[in-house]
Amino acid sequence: MIDHLGLQSADPAAAAAFYERVFEPCGVREMMRHDTPHGPVIGLAGPAGQPQLWTSPLEGPGDRPVHLALAAPSRDAVDAVFAA
Amino acid sequence: MIDHLGLQSADPAAAAAFYERVFEPCGVREMMRHDTPHGPVIGLAGPAGQPQLWTSPLEGPGDRPVHLALAAPSRDAVDAVFAA
Repeated sequence: MIDHLGLQSADPAAAAAFYERVFEPCGVREMMRHDTPHGPVIGLAGPAGQPQLWTSPLEGPGDRPVHLALAAPSRDAVDAVFAA
Repeated sequence: MIDHLGLQSADPAAAAAFYERVFEPCGVREMMRHDTPHGPVIGLAGPAGQPQLWTSPLEGPGDRPVHLALAAPSRDAVDAVFAA
């Protein structure tokens, strides 16, 4: 159901390193990293290899919106969600 | 990798109804509901039937902490995470 989740952090590299170190027994490891002017965007995966948990730089000094993506079975389903 | 995600809301029933209505094309539906004195705790599932997205009442008037649970392959792995 949940495709991936993105969390903002003042130090996304440190956040990813934290998840990787603490959840290593669950097979969590860095799978992707995109550098941006504000810091890296890092995708962590479990044993299945899909980067499902992402850390990224803060968008601003205030709130930290959560980015939540749900899995869709088809392009038609995506269109139906946007039409809802 | 992600087992389930919990989001707090001032009106968790309305939040769950929103996800169910908008993401119906993705097979999202209510699977579990626990009533509490502060409002319902509702588990939404996709086609696989596992309640992976939860809405619950606010813990307080301030921040809304995100509850994120990762999948573990064994009890030993959980113990190793807590020891890390």
